[in-house]
Amino acid sequence: MRKIYVIGIGAGDPDHLTIQAVKALNRTDVFFLLDKGAEKSDLIRLRHDILHEHIRHDRGYRLVEARDPERDRRAGGADYSPAVDDWRRARADIYERMLTEDLGDDECGAFLVWGDPALYDSTLGILEEILERGSVAFTYEVIPGISSVSALVARHRTGLNRVAGPVQITTGRRLAEGWPQGVDDVVVMLDAHQSFRHHMDKDPVIHWGAYVGTEDEILVSGRLSEVAGQIEELRSEARNRKGWIMDTYLLRRDRDQSD
Amino acid sequence: MRKIYVIGIGAGDPDHLTIQAVKALNRTDVFFLLDKGAEKSDLIRLRHDILHEHIRHDRGYRLVEARDPERDRRAGGADYSPAVDDWRRARADIYERMLTEDLGDDECGAFLVWGDPALYDSTLGILEEILERGSVAFTYEVIPGISSVSALVARHRTGLNRVAGPVQITTGRRLAEGWPQGVDDVVVMLDAHQSFRHHMDKDPVIHWGAYVGTEDEILVSGRLSEVAGQIEELRSEARNRKGWIMDTYLLRRDRDQSD
Repeated sequence: MRKIYVIGIGAGDPDHLTIQAVKALNRTDVFFLLDKGAEKSDLIRLRHDILHEHIRHDRGYRLVEARDPERDRRAGGADYSPAVDDWRRARADIYERMLTEDLGDDECGAFLVWGDPALYDSTLGILEEILERGSVAFTYEVIPGISSVSALVARHRTGLNRVAGPVQITTGRRLAEGWPQGVDDVVVMLDAHQSFRHHMDKDPVIHWGAYVGTEDEILVSGRLSEVAGQIEELRSEARNRKGWIMDTYLLRRDRDQSD
Repeated sequence: MRKIYVIGIGAGDPDHLTIQAVKALNRTDVFFLLDKGAEKSDLIRLRHDILHEHIRHDRGYRLVEARDPERDRRAGGADYSPAVDDWRRARADIYERMLTEDLGDDECGAFLVWGDPALYDSTLGILEEILERGSVAFTYEVIPGISSVSALVARHRTGLNRVAGPVQITTGRRLAEGWPQGVDDVVVMLDAHQSFRHHMDKDPVIHWGAYVGTEDEILVSGRLSEVAGQIEELRSEARNRKGWIMDTYLLRRDRDQSD
């Protein structure tokens, strides 16, 4: 039976890899690398570096690289929508073909996922979809990773929640629609539009980070009213320079504000 | 200057340790181990095992063990309250004494924190309080860890959020007060009272786990109406047998239910 590892490789720092992840890398015959476009070649290089550094055996391994299908971001963006369904189906087709054609019956394959496979990553859903299709049989195991959320707050030396309080993890798109109900601490991922701008009135503290854990890391903390402009400038400058950006932030509203 | 590492050591599986954590362990002169009572001796042993396995140098290291102050759980429990303030202050006193008396000026100390120091852990707050007191100077660095939340969903091979959806992480006490507003996916920690019982009417799917990542791991998944009784039995039996329990769960409500 084919075996698949879905390995969380952490948020950018190769030292985020767990011992469990290193062991899984060393049991893998075939690594499936999905290329999200030329602008993210830094990330592809980082994955190659991880393999080079951590694989200790010399029986060899194979790399299968594929191009991720383009996603029609006009029609739905990060939201659940027909466009996302199409994109997931196209992705599942590619994964299915790789699992069928590039992995032997008794071999072990792996997908390397940035951060933690549990947060805003589609790999698990796609594997379930392929299993439902029934054309190729495999088992799979998930290796948890250091999420960009954990990496962010570690670098800012703060917690996600305050004492006994809740924390919500959400998307930029949702934050733009309104501050989440019932929480003062909100982590925002996948925000291409600096949606914190919609909440200047609450003047929360923001802990922002881009490329966290890498040599390009940028961190900014402070009251939103004082640092929002600085974050926008740094973000725009870095994005132009590198061609891509991955950033995340925690918004922490004063506790005596209610909805 | 004294240097402190706050090291997330993962959710119970020694292989959750990251390479970053292993490197920090190997730079540490003094490990501060807080004993939370005899019933958790399993956890203390696990920490000793981690040190034994991962420290590669032979210049030696010191262990400083202290007893965590008892917390008056009658008056406030997991909530923010004067009792919690007292307990934090008592804990800060102990930490401050250890940092002052047991760590040399140029030495490096470490606190080993289960899971991720960012989630429902008081170490960072206590270190900040000690710095504010000003009696001992130090710098500190946070090493993120695999949280019990990441470990739980990895073992259940599911994500924390659904496509483009938010997820809230909260406590059992808060869940007992009501289903959090605006989210269908809720992770519950620190629940001594099986507060999922308050939400049988919504019949969410529950992904429950105890001692995740250890040899005692127990996992149950299913519609709450079908597995709630089984979880309560397993939980009670395990708690009696081992004398302590650490469990976490994800509740996933059908998306078409609104408040």
